[in-house]
Amino acid sequence: MATRLSTREHYADLLDKYDTWLFDCDGVLWQGDKLIEGATEVLQLLRHHKKSVLFVTNNATKSRKNYKKKFDSLGVEAHVDEIFGSAFASAVYISSVMKMPKDKKVYVIGMAGLEEELREEGIQYIGGTDPEDNTLGSFSLANWTPDPAVGAVLCGLDTSINYTKLSKAFNYILRNEGCAFLVTNEDSTYPTAEGLLPGAGSISAPLRYALGRDPIAIGKPKGTMLDCIRAK
Amino acid sequence: MATRLSTREHYADLLDKYDTWLFDCDGVLWQGDKLIEGATEVLQLLRHHKKSVLFVTNNATKSRKNYKKKFDSLGVEAHVDEIFGSAFASAVYISSVMKMPKDKKVYVIGMAGLEEELREEGIQYIGGTDPEDNTLGSFSLANWTPDPAVGAVLCGLDTSINYTKLSKAFNYILRNEGCAFLVTNEDSTYPTAEGLLPGAGSISAPLRYALGRDPIAIGKPKGTMLDCIRAK
Repeated sequence: MATRLSTREHYADLLDKYDTWLFDCDGVLWQGDKLIEGATEVLQLLRHHKKSVLFVTNNATKSRKNYKKKFDSLGVEAHVDEIFGSAFASAVYISSVMKMPKDKKVYVIGMAGLEEELREEGIQYIGGTDPEDNTLGSFSLANWTPDPAVGAVLCGLDTSINYTKLSKAFNYILRNEGCAFLVTNEDSTYPTAEGLLPGAGSISAPLRYALGRDPIAIGKPKGTMLDCIRAK
Repeated sequence: MATRLSTREHYADLLDKYDTWLFDCDGVLWQGDKLIEGATEVLQLLRHHKKSVLFVTNNATKSRKNYKKKFDSLGVEAHVDEIFGSAFASAVYISSVMKMPKDKKVYVIGMAGLEEELREEGIQYIGGTDPEDNTLGSFSLANWTPDPAVGAVLCGLDTSINYTKLSKAFNYILRNEGCAFLVTNEDSTYPTAEGLLPGAGSISAPLRYALGRDPIAIGKPKGTMLDCIRAK
């Protein structure tokens, strides 16, 4: 339950009560490239009191390493092992929970950061930033040779979303037996400094709609990412 | 209720009972560029018995004139005024049901056929096939000047769907007071000769998901298109 803190004692009690503090990033620490007032001071206070600070983000467009650069650019102290993103958690889910065989591949709708986390977990993937799939050209099943090794479709926020990617992802789930349908997170919108844009959940919405089926979601508020933090 | 016809008399009774015969096209008359067996013979029989034949299609990628060319190429007799498509019906809905003022504009997610039907109804539109919106480049609200005259977003099957179009459509509905959210049809998939691809309903799914709101749907099975046929 949310409690409104009003006195100095309330704050001191809260600080005393918890050793580990989890923070969301987009919309909590910053909006786009603008730092939210007071965010760095709160983090500094927690570190001063020797608290563990973890950053938990559904943003799957960046790998942890790249997300660290975002912290650096805004002057917010953060270490790579303090950052838990849904891209990283998705890769861990595929390798450790699904235990997808090493000869299987993931078809990715998503950006370079998601691919980086898959690579670091030793997971083979296709799609994603491959120029062949980043096109507004027409798509026909007649000219497509599906890869029978695709065992999962993983969909995150992809600002290069297009009909070719959606058609391939849809057909992999439809045709490849046992092909899993995973999404990094289900956020309907993505907060930027100037307002809202469609989020990762909206990017996977065509697949849900075409398949009439809900995906396995990794990020908040689903527990998968938190299980992953607890395991570390 | 569907009835299985088994005898010659059953067929004769059915033929006798109705003066006007409505046919779907994709998946009924043809699959992609392949004519479905027996389709032309049935149509010829109906015309021979002086029946009215109407073609009703949710396909909003083509205007009626262009759809006529598809009939011609497959050797199926059809006349433009026998063809009722969800693109045409959407344009009629905007001008005659919504009665959108002439100085207002439609933001289009859709293809040339949809634009053609809007033009024929004298409706101003932006988006659609405009090269500016047909890009896989990044989109930022900071670099965008929304058009305050946009009074409706109309979304149909668009094989050039991309993040810029989705972001603009989402923000028009969010920001422009009273902006209508219309979809040509809600088909989840689109049948081609080689299999299924995502349909118009899947193209508008990101907007539904981001907005948390259902659109007004024009095509079958909604009654709007049939009202339009009845009025003709």
